[in-house]
Amino acid sequence: MTALSPQALDGPVLVVGCGLIGTSVGLALRSHDVDVVLHDALPGNVEVAVSRGAGRPLDDAVRPYLVVVAVPPSASGAVVAEALARWHDALVTDVTSVKSGIQQAVEGLDGAERFAGGHPMAGSERSGPMAASAQLFEGRPWAVTPGPATRSDALDAVVDLALHVGAVPIIMESAAHDRAVALVSHVPQVMSTLTAARLHEAEGNSLALSGAGLRDTTRIAASDSALWRDILGTNRRDVKAVLERVRDDLDRVIGALDADDTDDDVLASVLESGRRGTALIPGKHGSSASDVDVVHVQVADRPGELSRLMAHTGEAGVNIEDLRLDHDLGRPVGLAEIAVAAGVGQALVRALTSRGWTAYP
Amino acid sequence: MTALSPQALDGPVLVVGCGLIGTSVGLALRSHDVDVVLHDALPGNVEVAVSRGAGRPLDDAVRPYLVVVAVPPSASGAVVAEALARWHDALVTDVTSVKSGIQQAVEGLDGAERFAGGHPMAGSERSGPMAASAQLFEGRPWAVTPGPATRSDALDAVVDLALHVGAVPIIMESAAHDRAVALVSHVPQVMSTLTAARLHEAEGNSLALSGAGLRDTTRIAASDSALWRDILGTNRRDVKAVLERVRDDLDRVIGALDADDTDDDVLASVLESGRRGTALIPGKHGSSASDVDVVHVQVADRPGELSRLMAHTGEAGVNIEDLRLDHDLGRPVGLAEIAVAAGVGQALVRALTSRGWTAYP
Repeated sequence: MTALSPQALDGPVLVVGCGLIGTSVGLALRSHDVDVVLHDALPGNVEVAVSRGAGRPLDDAVRPYLVVVAVPPSASGAVVAEALARWHDALVTDVTSVKSGIQQAVEGLDGAERFAGGHPMAGSERSGPMAASAQLFEGRPWAVTPGPATRSDALDAVVDLALHVGAVPIIMESAAHDRAVALVSHVPQVMSTLTAARLHEAEGNSLALSGAGLRDTTRIAASDSALWRDILGTNRRDVKAVLERVRDDLDRVIGALDADDTDDDVLASVLESGRRGTALIPGKHGSSASDVDVVHVQVADRPGELSRLMAHTGEAGVNIEDLRLDHDLGRPVGLAEIAVAAGVGQALVRALTSRGWTAYP
Repeated sequence: MTALSPQALDGPVLVVGCGLIGTSVGLALRSHDVDVVLHDALPGNVEVAVSRGAGRPLDDAVRPYLVVVAVPPSASGAVVAEALARWHDALVTDVTSVKSGIQQAVEGLDGAERFAGGHPMAGSERSGPMAASAQLFEGRPWAVTPGPATRSDALDAVVDLALHVGAVPIIMESAAHDRAVALVSHVPQVMSTLTAARLHEAEGNSLALSGAGLRDTTRIAASDSALWRDILGTNRRDVKAVLERVRDDLDRVIGALDADDTDDDVLASVLESGRRGTALIPGKHGSSASDVDVVHVQVADRPGELSRLMAHTGEAGVNIEDLRLDHDLGRPVGLAEIAVAAGVGQALVRALTSRGWTAYP
C-alpha cells in the first residue's frame, strides 16, 4: 500500500492507442471498475483489447473525463492536439518517454491547461495488446510532467491514473524529466552498448573469462537497436550533454593510464566518484555491499532445486534481500547468490550446509 | 562433472600466502586429500588457515611438488623468484590478476621452465583466511598462462590444480590474458564507474526514475576504489588501448547526437554493434532475449514467500533459467523476474495465477 490512495476517476477514461501500454492501462483501470473506452487507428487492436477486457469501443456518445494518448511517439503530438480540440471538457495526458518536445507543442494550443504529460517507467521486450497486463505498472515509477499552464485538476487526474494502475507518481517538470531519463536510462544504455561493442575485438577463447560483471554491465545492450536509436534521437540534447561529461572523465582516465604520465590519484578519484554515485540510487540494490552478507549456494539446474533451497532458507528464518542465479561455466549447476541482512550470512551458511547444500560466504 | 578429470597432484603442494585465495586453494585441495603445506609472512595467517583445515605448516623437510604463490601482486614476482631458487625441483605458479609483468620478470630467471602463471577468476568482497572457502573456485574460469620456456609438466600441474579445486582451466598466453581481462573485466569496470559518476548531477527527485537497467550497469561501480586503482594500474597499457577505441565510438555517438548534424545511421550502427557484442558472451546470460520468456511475479518481502513461489514453479514442472529479484519503489513487495525456456512463459503465468500469485509476462 502506498501512502497516497487513488481517488475515483470521475467519468470515462478514453485510451487512444491499444498497444502494450494503452491496453495495460485499460486492463488495470477495469480491475478498479473504471469505465474505459478504447480507440486505435487499427480497429483490429481495439477488438483484441476489448476481447481481453480492457474496455469498450469508442462511440460518438462518449464524453471522456480523461484521454490517455498511448500512440507511438511520432504520432503523439498530433493525437494530443486532436483530443484537446475534439473534447473541450476532457483532461488529456500521454505516455511518451521524452517530455519536452510534446510539452512545447501543446503550449501553443487552445486547451493547453487541460494537458499534463506522463511517462510510465514500464515496458516489456514484447509489444501489442496481447502482451498487455493489468500489472505492468505495479510498483513502477510514473513520471507526471505538468506544464506552466496545466490546471490542478489535470495534474490530479494523471496522478490518480498512475495510482489506479498501481504505479508510483513522481511529479517533475518536463525538462527535468528529460535530463533525469538521460542520466538514469539513456546514457546507461549508450555506456552498455559501448562496452559490448568492444567484445568484437576478443581473440580466441578470451571471452571464456567473462563473469557476472560483464554480463550485468552489458545486459541492456542486447535491447532493440532501432527502438533505442529513436529514443536517443528524441532526447539528443540532454543525452549529448551527459555524454560530453562522460567523455571528460574518460579523457582523464585515459590520460592517467598513460605509461609516461601515470596519475593514480586521478584514477582513484574517478573510481571513488563512481562508487559514491551508486549509493545515490534509491532501493536496496543501491545499498552498499557492507549492508548485506552474500551467501553462495550451488544449485543443480533442474526443476525444484531452487524451491528446496528457498524452503530451507525460509525454515532458517532468514529473509532474502536479493537473489541472483548465475550459471557456472561448462557445468550443469547454477550458483545462487543470496543477499541477506548483514550479520546473518554465517548462520545461513551453517543452516544450509547442515541441510546438505554446498554453501559458502 | 567436467569432461577433464584431475590427475593426482604428485606430492606436497606449498601455498605461500594464506589470504582468501591461498587458504581457499588449501581447503579445496585438502578436500581431495592432497598434502597441503602453508606459509605466510604473517604467522597468524598460517595459524588461522591450519585451524580451518587448509593444510599443515611449512617445515625444512618439505620438498614441494608445486608451489602456489598467492601473495599480494606487489610481492608476487619476488616470491616466485625465491621459490624457483629455493626448491630446484618444484613447479611454481601464481594467482595475480595481470600476467605479462610477472611472466617477463620470470623469463630472466634460472628455473623459468618450471613456472606457469595462473589467474583464478574468483574472489569475494571479503578477504583473509577466515573468508576462505573450499568452494570459492567451483565452476569459475582459471586462466593458465604458460610462457615460452614453460615445461609441459609445469603447465599440466597448474591445469591439475585448477581441476582439483573445481575450476575450469583456460590456457592462454599471458599477453592474450591481459588483453582479455581488459575487455571483459577492467574496461566494464571503468564504464560502470563513468556511468555512476554522472549520478552526482541528478536534480531533485530524478533518481526516483531509476530502474533495473541503471542498477545493473552500475552494480560493479560500487566496488572498492583502491583495489581497482591498483588493478587498472597494473594493466594500464591494455586498458588504455580499449578505452581509446571506446572513446572513438563515444565521439561518433556524440557527433551523431549533435542537433546540427544528426546522423541516426551512426547511432543505429553503434547500437547494433553493441547488441551483437552481447551475443558473443558465453553462458545463458549471453543468450538473446528471444531465447527465453520472462515472467514477472509479485513477492511479499518476508521469509518464505520466495520459497512458496519456487515450490509452485516446480509443481508446474517449469525449469528456471534465470531469476532476479527486484524491489518495487516504495512498496513492501519485490518483483521476481523469472526467465524460462521460450514458449513456456504463458503456461507458467497461468499456473502461478491459478495458485493465487500476481504473475504476468
